[in-house]
Amino acid sequence: MPLAIGSYEKLRDLSDGSDLLNLAWTQDERDLLGADVMAVVAQELTAEVAEGLPYTGDYMVKDPYGEGVLGPAVAEFFGRPGWTASVTCGAGVGPLLHGLSLLAAGGTVEVVTDVYPDFPHWVARAGGRLVPFGSGPPGDVLLLERPALTDHRFAGLDAVRELAAGAAERGAVVLVDESNANYCPARYSAANLAGELPNLLVVRGLSKAYGLGGVRLGYCVASASLTEAVRGAVAPLGASSLSLRIGRRVLGLGDVTSGLRAEIARNKPLVRELLSAAGVPGPVAAADGLPYVLFPEEPQAAVEALAARGVQGKVQPVWSATTGALTATGRISVPLAASRLAELETRLNREPTG
Amino acid sequence: MPLAIGSYEKLRDLSDGSDLLNLAWTQDERDLLGADVMAVVAQELTAEVAEGLPYTGDYMVKDPYGEGVLGPAVAEFFGRPGWTASVTCGAGVGPLLHGLSLLAAGGTVEVVTDVYPDFPHWVARAGGRLVPFGSGPPGDVLLLERPALTDHRFAGLDAVRELAAGAAERGAVVLVDESNANYCPARYSAANLAGELPNLLVVRGLSKAYGLGGVRLGYCVASASLTEAVRGAVAPLGASSLSLRIGRRVLGLGDVTSGLRAEIARNKPLVRELLSAAGVPGPVAAADGLPYVLFPEEPQAAVEALAARGVQGKVQPVWSATTGALTATGRISVPLAASRLAELETRLNREPTG
Repeated sequence: MPLAIGSYEKLRDLSDGSDLLNLAWTQDERDLLGADVMAVVAQELTAEVAEGLPYTGDYMVKDPYGEGVLGPAVAEFFGRPGWTASVTCGAGVGPLLHGLSLLAAGGTVEVVTDVYPDFPHWVARAGGRLVPFGSGPPGDVLLLERPALTDHRFAGLDAVRELAAGAAERGAVVLVDESNANYCPARYSAANLAGELPNLLVVRGLSKAYGLGGVRLGYCVASASLTEAVRGAVAPLGASSLSLRIGRRVLGLGDVTSGLRAEIARNKPLVRELLSAAGVPGPVAAADGLPYVLFPEEPQAAVEALAARGVQGKVQPVWSATTGALTATGRISVPLAASRLAELETRLNREPTG
Repeated sequence: MPLAIGSYEKLRDLSDGSDLLNLAWTQDERDLLGADVMAVVAQELTAEVAEGLPYTGDYMVKDPYGEGVLGPAVAEFFGRPGWTASVTCGAGVGPLLHGLSLLAAGGTVEVVTDVYPDFPHWVARAGGRLVPFGSGPPGDVLLLERPALTDHRFAGLDAVRELAAGAAERGAVVLVDESNANYCPARYSAANLAGELPNLLVVRGLSKAYGLGGVRLGYCVASASLTEAVRGAVAPLGASSLSLRIGRRVLGLGDVTSGLRAEIARNKPLVRELLSAAGVPGPVAAADGLPYVLFPEEPQAAVEALAARGVQGKVQPVWSATTGALTATGRISVPLAASRLAELETRLNREPTG
């Protein structure tokens, strides 16, 4: 399967075991958040029951994109109450991108940074084509991730402004996948530009950092002039009304990831050093904010070298903006809990088996 | 907006008022169910909190289509444990149909019965075309609703078998939208044929009859040979894990709509008679099971005649399998509570105003 979710299919398990340190995904982030997010979720569910299920019982046909519930919380989160941007909710970033791929149905997407393979997959499925940014054919949509895996060119908002201005000249929109921007402060987000740039879409969710992937809530912040196009592509009624309740409360907590960010920034170079010293081939620290160490050169060899030491990594599909094709990188999530970091060190110091 | 949800945009309100009997949608169905569905939902939420949020905290990357959680409950609901059909979950029937429209990207859909406009809209958006069934161009997908609004041709499973066999001969799949089949016994469903017919897709949800539209859970029952095609079209991770918990419990209640069905069958002809006697133009009882009286001939005039008597109806967009184009019908939901039926009678006996 060419979707990112396919990379989990072959994994035996998702938790640590006596014979396995599982770094195939993040699992120790919640403890480092500035609020007990799961306690907050429990409070909301308890209140929902006590209040007679006002959200669960509400079929939101009058607010089918969840803007009435979540919009003010999103504006507040970015410190921009009253902005002109619109908020369109869906069942997570993945389903939103699936819908937004229709913006390029029969058209062209220029891929600006390396990206997860899902959006390219859905674009191709809808008869669109994908080309590396600036390689010739002008795109209807420019796609990038922020933070991108290893690419800092668009880490600053001025670079995004410039990209969007160039795209606007040829009638293209800029779609920014910020799933991973929960690992950055709110001021980092390109959503801050949606009131200013007429051709900007920014998609974000609650899976990364918050650990609320099960809630299935994503939102697309769009320039006002793009709202109709977004809602002509994304299915209405994608988010559960209870998930919207939870999301509103969680965004209302404000910036809760500063402690997590600090721990990632501290551990990531240490982990890269450990891997390098242990001879795992080609470890690269992912871009600022991201909780990953990558193995772009020899993904399979790196994952196998880790497996021989009882460490579970993952081969992650990537659509490469350099080669214009589907490729892969190796990936581990940086252990954050002290005990798991120590465990990684112990395992890397052992003789490999198998 | 050409989506069905657009028909709610102009409605002032969704509940009854002193000057309004709101029949624009169903709102008195829950009381007639054989179980207190909202109490069951409350139990599940309470248990979820007591158990430490096992579902909410679970990002279902190893079960991205919810089949592990919901599949056995669906099979059990239809009395077919161990069937070969697959279950692919999404955020409701609408989002599932949005995804499934990619099955006809760049291809042709033959529309067999009058249908809600959403699937045709998404197909056209993805570069596909729509034609009335049997009008010439062979379809990649045959689309029908069961029950269809006023069309009984495919009410029996033998008719579905025959349709699917004919479609199979030319390599087409049959997609059945059974959103409204919650108003029928489980044995009515074409899902019962998914183990037998290789080219069948049946989409169902929990919005109609159950009143759980806010939970955003739909499922696609597919012949085993079509599972890969379905999951190549529908976004993974569409359903919230808590919604899957709720859905599993609700389907586990078995057939809870028999009392509701009986009340709809009793009131629908009465309401049609009342409307006819009051001179509202052209009321037609919708097909067996459906809780609607329709005004296909003069939708706008009928809705205005109702409004002049303080009754809120709705103009509902429909893609017509007869004309091959978007059209509309007038619609009211049959009042089921005795007090609301009496209120309708009182209002229809008044002199119209305005």
